[in-house]
Amino acid sequence: MVPFSKSTQSMRSSEIRELLKLAVRPDVISFAGGMPNNDLFPIEELDEIYSHLPAKLKKIGMQYGPTAGYPPLIESLKKYLSTKGLPLENNDLIVTTGSMQAIYLLAKVFIDPGDRIITEYPCFIGATAAFNSFQPELESVPIDDDGIIISQLEKALFRPAKFLYLTPNFHNPAGIIYSTERKKQLLQLLQNKKIILIEDDPYNELYFEKEDEKLTTPLKTMGEPVPICYTGSFSKIFGPGMRLGWLLAPKKIIEKCELAKQAVDACSSTFTQVLANEFMRKDIMPKYLQKLRASYAQRCDVMLRSLKEYMPSEVKWTHPRGGFYVWLTFPERVDATDVLKESIDNGAVFVIGKAFDPESRRNNCLRLSFSYPAEDKIQEGIKIVADAIKLFL
Amino acid sequence: MVPFSKSTQSMRSSEIRELLKLAVRPDVISFAGGMPNNDLFPIEELDEIYSHLPAKLKKIGMQYGPTAGYPPLIESLKKYLSTKGLPLENNDLIVTTGSMQAIYLLAKVFIDPGDRIITEYPCFIGATAAFNSFQPELESVPIDDDGIIISQLEKALFRPAKFLYLTPNFHNPAGIIYSTERKKQLLQLLQNKKIILIEDDPYNELYFEKEDEKLTTPLKTMGEPVPICYTGSFSKIFGPGMRLGWLLAPKKIIEKCELAKQAVDACSSTFTQVLANEFMRKDIMPKYLQKLRASYAQRCDVMLRSLKEYMPSEVKWTHPRGGFYVWLTFPERVDATDVLKESIDNGAVFVIGKAFDPESRRNNCLRLSFSYPAEDKIQEGIKIVADAIKLFL
Repeated sequence: MVPFSKSTQSMRSSEIRELLKLAVRPDVISFAGGMPNNDLFPIEELDEIYSHLPAKLKKIGMQYGPTAGYPPLIESLKKYLSTKGLPLENNDLIVTTGSMQAIYLLAKVFIDPGDRIITEYPCFIGATAAFNSFQPELESVPIDDDGIIISQLEKALFRPAKFLYLTPNFHNPAGIIYSTERKKQLLQLLQNKKIILIEDDPYNELYFEKEDEKLTTPLKTMGEPVPICYTGSFSKIFGPGMRLGWLLAPKKIIEKCELAKQAVDACSSTFTQVLANEFMRKDIMPKYLQKLRASYAQRCDVMLRSLKEYMPSEVKWTHPRGGFYVWLTFPERVDATDVLKESIDNGAVFVIGKAFDPESRRNNCLRLSFSYPAEDKIQEGIKIVADAIKLFL
Repeated sequence: MVPFSKSTQSMRSSEIRELLKLAVRPDVISFAGGMPNNDLFPIEELDEIYSHLPAKLKKIGMQYGPTAGYPPLIESLKKYLSTKGLPLENNDLIVTTGSMQAIYLLAKVFIDPGDRIITEYPCFIGATAAFNSFQPELESVPIDDDGIIISQLEKALFRPAKFLYLTPNFHNPAGIIYSTERKKQLLQLLQNKKIILIEDDPYNELYFEKEDEKLTTPLKTMGEPVPICYTGSFSKIFGPGMRLGWLLAPKKIIEKCELAKQAVDACSSTFTQVLANEFMRKDIMPKYLQKLRASYAQRCDVMLRSLKEYMPSEVKWTHPRGGFYVWLTFPERVDATDVLKESIDNGAVFVIGKAFDPESRRNNCLRLSFSYPAEDKIQEGIKIVADAIKLFL
């Protein structure tokens, strides 16, 4: 057969992806999936939307739409983002097939083989997959409880790089949120640097306590020392199956991303865009988000109490104020893959730390998601994971 | 700002895309859009599907699905394709975000800059866009009323190429269908060649007369001298806004495309996949297709009669037996862009021939789509186009 392209030849089927497939087996308690529990989706609200949808909008939903997105949804999103203080002037917005695609389009539009990309450590697995498909050189800078470590980022910025990719709010997988101070230091550091900042913010709305809302202020609202490409998603506030996200970025960048999207999938589903627009337009979101926040706060609380009850003292973990995830770290002699195999045998799964290491190395850590498992199974599952860790300590 | 990638720097915003935006202006008779008229969508059937959809399936639709596609839809598609004689053994199927994405994934997985790709002339604009985003060398081989010209293809195959991209059934934009004899000659010619054939078949179901169904036999069912990647779409048989297509190809190729799709958009909309699966499973499609075929046959007939009535004798056109399109050719001294500008001023649009020329040169031709405009506007629109052509003859 004719050979695959060079970038394809360097792709490897990931053992992690294989393990993740276990995440949805009904007989296993899954802390693996970065997704809402099926029972948390707004099905009644969806029925309400569909039952009042005029035939004209259904027809529009069945048709091709503009590559940049269904215009009324773009308007709704702009209105929503402007309430968060996000700058619309000199920027443009496109709707993407999940925020995953927004990251992919940026990668496609900017990365040549060998280009440097700076990420956090740990880092969202989807972003590293999108970047890696264009053969860049990835370098990751560690985060602590307050965000990326500024002194280390400073060193990484000595050499030219195309992107700095960050998830400042309710980090996936680390579960932390950047402090306001750290956000300011970061923007200060970026003054006069030649780089693009991708601010990935899919968990923005998922704070547990109202008082923490102010922590979620996007970097892009705090001044833009370098161009900031801001990505968001309906996956965590409506449903991932809609496959809708967005990218707010300087006009010149959006123009190229739109052109790239024409070649990638022409447009995102108009049908789900029409539904998502009604969801926003009818003001269903605020009430639904309240319900979601309370449920995730509760699940997180159960998880944190279970961790405290069962984990041996050598294990450390983060204490999320929102989002989906808790990040566990244990002594280096313990390998998360061993822990996972043992855990699976006993009925619980999670994602091993290595998956979130752009260099695929560090594995004395793992990600626990509290968003997906049934609340009454969390305690049982954490005990299984704790027992597995103890075996290898 | 940091520079765009090399492939982005070579992208140009297409004047053709700009002109296409006119296609949906309500005051213009549009022969431009390769899409069904909004009134032809199965809205009643969709309501029927939604109203009987159990909450459990709605929840699945709101959730992430496997990258390869929603498993019940994959099963329905396999069943459907096997009734057409398509080989499932040693092959695999993935659901894609439109068949556009299937072509894009193949391009991503195989094309390195400078690789040769052979297409037909004229050729589907979306395919050339997908290929071009990976900087290949495109070479197009002309088609006649029976398909690609074998002697010219033979010459093109002297030099190595990665893909041969063909749309044998109800060609976009040419509106022809390959004769059975030509299909056989083509497969004969490909014996012992080292190339991959992409068989793009989105219009397969849209024959006007039952007796022509046999002409639509896919190449992939007639023996596979080289690996054949078969792409199809829900866009023409359900609705483009669903953004669903599929790729049936040898397992090794599907494996890489699935891996690439993980980085592109993770999965296609589960929600529209659930709807599309019900559409297939409930056997709504056969009856709906009958209605569609009758409507398109009728529209095509009106268009052909109008062409005969208004076009000057120097203009030639194809006589479709299915699909969406009529392809017009006129003397070389007439430029389709001039004709288009004049036509737009008088209230009718189409796509200029150059858009379908991978080398963006030949422009004494244009594509008329009879699928989108209101039937009672076709005659009026054709008169406008004919008058515009006459001005430049």
